[in-house]
Amino acid sequence: MLKNKDLDENTEMRIKSVCRKALEWIMPSEEERARTLEFTRLLLESLKRELSKDNVNAEVQIEGSIAKDTWLAGEKDIDIFVLLPQEYGRDYFQKVLEAAKRVSEGNYLEAYAEHPYIEAYIDGFTVNFVPCFMVKNPAEAKSSVDRTPFHTQYVKNRLNEPLKNEIRLLKAFMHGIGVYGAEIKVGGFSGYLCELLVLYYGSFIRVLEAASRWRRGEVIDIEEHYKSPEEARRAFRNEPLIVVDPVDRNRNVASAVRINRLSEFILASRLFLKNPDIKFFKPQVIEPYSSEKLLKVMNERGSTLIFVKTGAIRAVPDILWGQLFKSQRAILNLLRQFDFDIIRSDVWSDEKETNVFVFEVSSRLLPPIKRHVGPPIDKISNCEDFLKKHLESKWILSGPRIEEDRLIIERRRRYIDVVELLRDKLAQGGGRKIGVASLVAKAFSENLEILANEEILPFYLSNNNFARFLTEYLIGRPKWLI
Amino acid sequence: MLKNKDLDENTEMRIKSVCRKALEWIMPSEEERARTLEFTRLLLESLKRELSKDNVNAEVQIEGSIAKDTWLAGEKDIDIFVLLPQEYGRDYFQKVLEAAKRVSEGNYLEAYAEHPYIEAYIDGFTVNFVPCFMVKNPAEAKSSVDRTPFHTQYVKNRLNEPLKNEIRLLKAFMHGIGVYGAEIKVGGFSGYLCELLVLYYGSFIRVLEAASRWRRGEVIDIEEHYKSPEEARRAFRNEPLIVVDPVDRNRNVASAVRINRLSEFILASRLFLKNPDIKFFKPQVIEPYSSEKLLKVMNERGSTLIFVKTGAIRAVPDILWGQLFKSQRAILNLLRQFDFDIIRSDVWSDEKETNVFVFEVSSRLLPPIKRHVGPPIDKISNCEDFLKKHLESKWILSGPRIEEDRLIIERRRRYIDVVELLRDKLAQGGGRKIGVASLVAKAFSENLEILANEEILPFYLSNNNFARFLTEYLIGRPKWLI
Repeated sequence: MLKNKDLDENTEMRIKSVCRKALEWIMPSEEERARTLEFTRLLLESLKRELSKDNVNAEVQIEGSIAKDTWLAGEKDIDIFVLLPQEYGRDYFQKVLEAAKRVSEGNYLEAYAEHPYIEAYIDGFTVNFVPCFMVKNPAEAKSSVDRTPFHTQYVKNRLNEPLKNEIRLLKAFMHGIGVYGAEIKVGGFSGYLCELLVLYYGSFIRVLEAASRWRRGEVIDIEEHYKSPEEARRAFRNEPLIVVDPVDRNRNVASAVRINRLSEFILASRLFLKNPDIKFFKPQVIEPYSSEKLLKVMNERGSTLIFVKTGAIRAVPDILWGQLFKSQRAILNLLRQFDFDIIRSDVWSDEKETNVFVFEVSSRLLPPIKRHVGPPIDKISNCEDFLKKHLESKWILSGPRIEEDRLIIERRRRYIDVVELLRDKLAQGGGRKIGVASLVAKAFSENLEILANEEILPFYLSNNNFARFLTEYLIGRPKWLI
Repeated sequence: MLKNKDLDENTEMRIKSVCRKALEWIMPSEEERARTLEFTRLLLESLKRELSKDNVNAEVQIEGSIAKDTWLAGEKDIDIFVLLPQEYGRDYFQKVLEAAKRVSEGNYLEAYAEHPYIEAYIDGFTVNFVPCFMVKNPAEAKSSVDRTPFHTQYVKNRLNEPLKNEIRLLKAFMHGIGVYGAEIKVGGFSGYLCELLVLYYGSFIRVLEAASRWRRGEVIDIEEHYKSPEEARRAFRNEPLIVVDPVDRNRNVASAVRINRLSEFILASRLFLKNPDIKFFKPQVIEPYSSEKLLKVMNERGSTLIFVKTGAIRAVPDILWGQLFKSQRAILNLLRQFDFDIIRSDVWSDEKETNVFVFEVSSRLLPPIKRHVGPPIDKISNCEDFLKKHLESKWILSGPRIEEDRLIIERRRRYIDVVELLRDKLAQGGGRKIGVASLVAKAFSENLEILANEEILPFYLSNNNFARFLTEYLIGRPKWLI
């Protein structure tokens, strides 16, 4: 670790000690390293063999953290890319997938992100077999996987042994605080992004020091593809963090990073530098509340927790979480539109059987009366329409009258009970109309439970993972702040 | 009435017929006119006599609608101005007041607006004796009363018999829809303003037609004191209606007109022209709801009506209402600050014994939980303070955590009951601290009742005037819209 002037000596000592402790369990042992590399080599060979049987002339390469020797102890993800000549058509992808399936001996899923790929489970490893095109430079990439080999090459060319551990520390820190991973569920920092940050700033601690001072729209442009941060910001408008891909100026490596995760990383960086602690790397495990405690905590809040629970949605995690988040936003809009005051919301999924949306509202019931602001007096025909509509309406409670320069009425609400509103709008395929994503709307029409407060108890007691989620929700504090 | 192209013949006929009916009861009879003028003449003479006894050498003049012969039948207000030479000091005002008191034979109030004056009650008339300075031109006026004689002169010079009735129609219309009067309680159109509007537009109906199309910031500059409406708007910034005083370019005759009253006049003008009806001149009398009906209507709304009731406040009406409105705004701010959702508010006063503020809120109680949005993550020291304050706070229910780029917590509310909040903040002289006006705060500290919903019933049943007010509040619709 590099010496730093910002930190006093005592804090620096403590940081070093915490990092040393962390490294002890995040550095793969010699044994793990040897086993992993040997396993990878064997895989590579058997895949090459299968490909040559089919006369597929391709380059087979290891990518990801195994290729760069930056993986964390216990990580079991192996990425194997098959680079096909560009002359080959897309039909060759299928040949690669077939070869991969044979190597996987039946234990695999056929998945699809931008590209088809095979996710296989072999000897405790998760192996991704990814066909892609071999392009001359990253600008020719037809999809992001074509760019991956360039990323690997870029990082490998600049790495040295000490840097590898700095990268491991950053990844482990991000993992510990819950911001690691570019998948939709997390919306955090990819491994490649961690590697670039360490290469750019020089060490784990320097990344944290820099991040402590990051502002929204921070630009990191390692290869100086842009003349100025402003120019880069114009190219990547509104992205909270901009890390220009060294191998492709048109890509933001941090485009998956959501503002929440970025802010959490910034705050955690500050707090760690001030008060280094192993908990940032190894968060404590939260034990779910007992049912008595759960009810007591809910009762103290005095809000209403609404659980919208549905059954299985068959989709890969990125699709599933994309649909869940989109549906969550749609339902939040619905609740706001009907004046329910939202305290918070969250989504839980086991990615298999059950999905639960949580909507916490101030109150399950609203008063029957609703103040409704009409047009300003100088919109003559709007005023006429408003008067015509409301003067005889059976929904009216008071008015119309004038306040300031507007027509106002008080009328009866259409929905006073949030549960009734949700049931009416989500059941029987109605979800689509209010913007719920297709697969979720389908799930709702097959299986929809709307539970309020303690009605969640049976499921809470039956599912420990959900119980932990709900307990953490109620604590509502990142573990590194506990 | 002048012929008009905008209206179809049928509507024009109906307007004429309604106006004819209205004039029948708003034009003073020959007998009333003779009696009023004779009474005024006698008053004038006896005041002159008293002044000469004291060697006060002053011009005594009738002002107001009696002077201009524009008063409405049954109006019993006589304005007598005593114009003192400018050489005289302010002590001469006292001599005028003393003379007026002698004329009033004991039945008077000594009042003070900008100026001291005597309000006397003689033979069923309300007579204002107002001392002022005789200035050469209105720009030299030391207070608005010095300008009044010029207003009277300006209007008298331009009046003719038909115009007098047009003015009477406009005044009666404005009175009927509740926008007549420049006093604070009303915030509407003064008699002088009505006269100017008729002089400018030519007739009652033409005023209504013009008003139907008025926009916020409308400029009427009869003597073309300003080069353009824009110039006038720059001089009278943000005033909703600008009628440049013909005798003083620096005065807006409509400065007392509040946006509510202006909007009501505009809308009523449009509706009258479309569907002329005597109800605009003679609004129906609303009978108070029975107590059963009152409770039923309140219950249907489902809101909470909070009545803040206090005792006598000794002040002339303009001061009283100024203080009441200021206090109402302060209390509304308090309620908003503590997150109570306000449906509507109003103030009632008998101007003697009792004052009642009405605050209608969605719900008397709020849930214990409150979402509290903290600083954005890039305000480093604010974040530190926020964490320090809340990490150990006993008020915390959840958090701190991050949402988007901000720290968020959920905490217990300090007040969940609006009645408790108001009692705490208004009792024992606390009102001043939250911005309640001085006399009202004093009244609260002597006598404060905070009543919710049906708790108002005893007072409602004991005071017919208040009962009518509350009934009209609940209907919440101008009488010309009923």
